[in-house]
Amino acid sequence: MTLALDAAAQDLLFREARTANTFTDEPVTDEQVQAIYDLVKYGPTAFNQTPLRITLVRSAEARERLVKHMAEGNQPKTAAAPLVAILSADNEFHEELPALLPHFPQAKDLFFGERPVREQSAVLNAALQAAYFIIGVRAAGLAAGPMTGLDFAGVQKEFLDDDHTPLMVVNIGKPGEDAWFPRSPRLAYEDVVTTV
Amino acid sequence: MTLALDAAAQDLLFREARTANTFTDEPVTDEQVQAIYDLVKYGPTAFNQTPLRITLVRSAEARERLVKHMAEGNQPKTAAAPLVAILSADNEFHEELPALLPHFPQAKDLFFGERPVREQSAVLNAALQAAYFIIGVRAAGLAAGPMTGLDFAGVQKEFLDDDHTPLMVVNIGKPGEDAWFPRSPRLAYEDVVTTV
Repeated sequence: MTLALDAAAQDLLFREARTANTFTDEPVTDEQVQAIYDLVKYGPTAFNQTPLRITLVRSAEARERLVKHMAEGNQPKTAAAPLVAILSADNEFHEELPALLPHFPQAKDLFFGERPVREQSAVLNAALQAAYFIIGVRAAGLAAGPMTGLDFAGVQKEFLDDDHTPLMVVNIGKPGEDAWFPRSPRLAYEDVVTTV
Repeated sequence: MTLALDAAAQDLLFREARTANTFTDEPVTDEQVQAIYDLVKYGPTAFNQTPLRITLVRSAEARERLVKHMAEGNQPKTAAAPLVAILSADNEFHEELPALLPHFPQAKDLFFGERPVREQSAVLNAALQAAYFIIGVRAAGLAAGPMTGLDFAGVQKEFLDDDHTPLMVVNIGKPGEDAWFPRSPRLAYEDVVTTV
């Protein structure tokens, strides 16, 4: 075996895990979300900036407001999923850097004094953390349904502010009936990896 | 236990895994990289676009060219790591979409006909895949050292082309002596997650 990770964990996180389009009614609790966060918060980011922010859409009123901003094809599943989370990047993450990087507090001003630099870094690193979060949802025995088919400006205005860039919306729950399409093909190793 | 993933796998991928700054001399083989790819290629991306491309820097000559473009603090470890990979986003990923999304080949032109839209999607989704790749390196029992402290334009010109946006460079290997700093703090759940 080339991998150290056991086969059951490989299946749970990657090989058998799938993007779910339908879910059962079983609720996703705050305790589950906290356990997911307490695992994936350790995933690496540049300067430990950890810019991902998570908005859990729990009330019926907020769910209704969110569904309006989703692409039509994503509306029914967003309306029905046990839990929906808006993942965003905090463009003002540098305010937390002295606490997050105690051995190098100067990084706050030295590298992230300018907003465009911060925004680019926040989006890239929050995207890494979004992937860790999806893996974490799967680690909790749940299925994730990440979506980028939505009105980003509308979601930002409705739920966030100018300092937070929405990256995606994720449906979370136990997969329901006919939860997914057949697995689509992947590129061959030779098409992705080159050696110099 | 709230998580389905076993504790050993949690430790391997997140809790005990760390960004390594030093490595042993043990080589990282192509078989290991292939095993990593064959696991993490299943991580989800929008429209299954899988835009991540990986350049393995194996020759001494290429390594020397890469080191010149790294920030000074990253040069020694980039020079010494058993394997170094340049991760980039393929902005022309849409050419592969008919093969990758056989049930919806129209997506190629319908959603990704315009280059700026493609670029933004490629970078976001390649960043997700970069995170899956880091998790995959750890799943192989290796340590990753992802770095964004580098001259991106220089790396692009030296190793890639206008169609590939470099995202990060990753050192890969077995951790060596004093491989990491003490773990930096993470944000509390309450500081990251809000509920509406």
